[in-house]
Amino acid sequence: MIKEERLWDHLMDLAKVGAAEDPKEGITRLAYTREDDEAKALVTKYMEEAGLEVHEDQVGNLIGKREGKNPDKPGIMIGSHLDTVFQGGKFDGALGVLAGVEVAHALQEEGHPLDRNLEVVAFTDEEGARFSTGMLGSQAMTGKLEKEVLEKKDKDGILYRDALLEKGYDPENIHRAKREKGSIAAYLEIHIEQAVQLERKKVSVGIVTGIAGPRWYRFTVLGESGHAGSTPMNMRKDPMSAAVKLIQDIENIVSAKENTVGTIGQIEAKPGGINIIPKEVIFTLDLRDSVNSERMAAEQEINESVLKLEKELGVEIVTELLHNLDPVPCDKKIVDTAEKSANELGIDSIRMISGAAHDAMNMASITSIGMLFIPSYKGLSHRPDEWSDKEDCGNGAKVLYQTVKNLDKKL
Amino acid sequence: MIKEERLWDHLMDLAKVGAAEDPKEGITRLAYTREDDEAKALVTKYMEEAGLEVHEDQVGNLIGKREGKNPDKPGIMIGSHLDTVFQGGKFDGALGVLAGVEVAHALQEEGHPLDRNLEVVAFTDEEGARFSTGMLGSQAMTGKLEKEVLEKKDKDGILYRDALLEKGYDPENIHRAKREKGSIAAYLEIHIEQAVQLERKKVSVGIVTGIAGPRWYRFTVLGESGHAGSTPMNMRKDPMSAAVKLIQDIENIVSAKENTVGTIGQIEAKPGGINIIPKEVIFTLDLRDSVNSERMAAEQEINESVLKLEKELGVEIVTELLHNLDPVPCDKKIVDTAEKSANELGIDSIRMISGAAHDAMNMASITSIGMLFIPSYKGLSHRPDEWSDKEDCGNGAKVLYQTVKNLDKKL
Repeated sequence: MIKEERLWDHLMDLAKVGAAEDPKEGITRLAYTREDDEAKALVTKYMEEAGLEVHEDQVGNLIGKREGKNPDKPGIMIGSHLDTVFQGGKFDGALGVLAGVEVAHALQEEGHPLDRNLEVVAFTDEEGARFSTGMLGSQAMTGKLEKEVLEKKDKDGILYRDALLEKGYDPENIHRAKREKGSIAAYLEIHIEQAVQLERKKVSVGIVTGIAGPRWYRFTVLGESGHAGSTPMNMRKDPMSAAVKLIQDIENIVSAKENTVGTIGQIEAKPGGINIIPKEVIFTLDLRDSVNSERMAAEQEINESVLKLEKELGVEIVTELLHNLDPVPCDKKIVDTAEKSANELGIDSIRMISGAAHDAMNMASITSIGMLFIPSYKGLSHRPDEWSDKEDCGNGAKVLYQTVKNLDKKL
Repeated sequence: MIKEERLWDHLMDLAKVGAAEDPKEGITRLAYTREDDEAKALVTKYMEEAGLEVHEDQVGNLIGKREGKNPDKPGIMIGSHLDTVFQGGKFDGALGVLAGVEVAHALQEEGHPLDRNLEVVAFTDEEGARFSTGMLGSQAMTGKLEKEVLEKKDKDGILYRDALLEKGYDPENIHRAKREKGSIAAYLEIHIEQAVQLERKKVSVGIVTGIAGPRWYRFTVLGESGHAGSTPMNMRKDPMSAAVKLIQDIENIVSAKENTVGTIGQIEAKPGGINIIPKEVIFTLDLRDSVNSERMAAEQEINESVLKLEKELGVEIVTELLHNLDPVPCDKKIVDTAEKSANELGIDSIRMISGAAHDAMNMASITSIGMLFIPSYKGLSHRPDEWSDKEDCGNGAKVLYQTVKNLDKKL
């Protein structure tokens, strides 16, 4: 049985590692630092108490393993990370690892041997705060880590290569952390939502159906500059006028779809004088959906709006693709099983998509993935006041536990 | 009779004063400099050839005067300026002064004595390029020049006070340049349009009905920030969404009015991450009309839109007034007379407003004003490629001449 109090105590104790003296400055636990070592040592202790055999792989991922009755079958893996951003919070990453340990602990206490192996993983350097990277541990495990990353420097000029060496890892061996496709039957991760759906709907658990991939665009609307006073409205080719119409079209297009989101996070008018009709207006779009076809359908509609506005308003609109990550769907069997598990426990759940990326996104390239979310206070994350309630942490761990037990039979 | 060739020759000769060796660098004739002295000397020669008696007032305004048959009656004044911006063009200001001189010259040659005195004025430092001010000469003539301006510095650290002293003016006497209200019957100014209405409509002369006053606002739309991926569209309080609706409302409001213009020249989203729903969107509005009641009616409608959007979208919108100049209407009798004068000469004209400010704006506080515009190539101004055709310059001067003759009888 999941012990909510134990999970909470572990969360609060781990939160002391890397905590600033002033609580307003939160927790800073960067990868391959003294704080990281300390956190791993504490979690190693928890893992061992939970009956897991602990080791590290070639890149520093901390892995606790329990053998199943059929140890040759592909096993189940639960993971997340222990590192934080600069001045981060108590739950992002930590919850996923500690809830995994708690699942293992409950299994041990109940004497409920699984058919399959169970591994609980604390991935290294998910946040990327130290080397301006991200998800190094899950990249390594899925064979995606490029050698070039070894030459990345932290703010003190220390190479990732040297940080590895200092902690006893061989930079030439990081490729050996790779697991083969199919060697793991399912990867599960529980995480705080970092948004407000669950909180507003007063639901303890979100069953993630897919991780939305961000697709970043830059739109440059080119019009005709002019004096703000001496150009009548009907003689203008004002790029601002076209830009706001395009932004409204984008909003309408994505809002009409079920899960698509579009965000205009940057905008600028050039030359930028109060009394000058701009010559160009430049803005960015972050477009996401957990289903790529939906995202591309939105892109298609946006392109049509661009062509229509160019024709109607006599402006030119240049569209550039800045960045793309394909969305990753969660495995249907895992989603259904997680939902059924929550129902069995009488814990309310809703299906939702993950807007943010997680280690699960990498793991999807070698195994089936599933994710659970629990509410985060006001959606705040990556900051000292990041918060989730004890009961929600407990409920999340319970659904995770039940899901593992159900999946073990079904996979 | 106006001599188009003579006016053109004067324009081209004056354009050599302060011209850079590289034509791409245009003309730089800042107030109270060697180039300014040289320009004044040249124009003094032209004025004297036109039979004007030349003097300077206490601030350096260059004034050429012809006595009328009734010298005690309030006279007619024609003016503009000789200074330029850094790397400016050949026509802005220069045309107004030289066309005034040409009018005087034509009067002299035709032996057409006016009933009233005629003065042609080259105002000092209209552009404000040297001391980051503007319209110092017409401010002085209308009693608006504040003593504080004497402490303004140019980019070499020279005080305006010392620049005056160096050229032989007494900074303590600048208030004596003031003319009393009613002492001048009419002020006329001809200027390049600095916009594209005349060019597009293929009309030589614009009869200005009023000078639009700029009213500058800053709108700050406050919403809720959030992760671009994890916040569904229907749970957002996105200030960008509200901002683009408000900008569209503003455009619709001003476009529905006859002469009102509104320009969004600056816009910014904060914090400004591509993958962050902004917390605030800040943009400016330059709102203008030559009729204040129209401008204020637009402001009222914009305020209503702000309240409506706040209510509908749950955002907060803070409106700040950054700057205001009241619009200045041109005198109806002068406008009608100028239009009639153009008709008499068979020169096409349209009525229009001036979006930009001119010395006439100051003069309106002590006399009735009228302005004429001629086409500027592509509306370009304050740059080396500023251009107006010879014929348009000539037509403008002809309408100005006819207007002076007609007004002399009517005022």
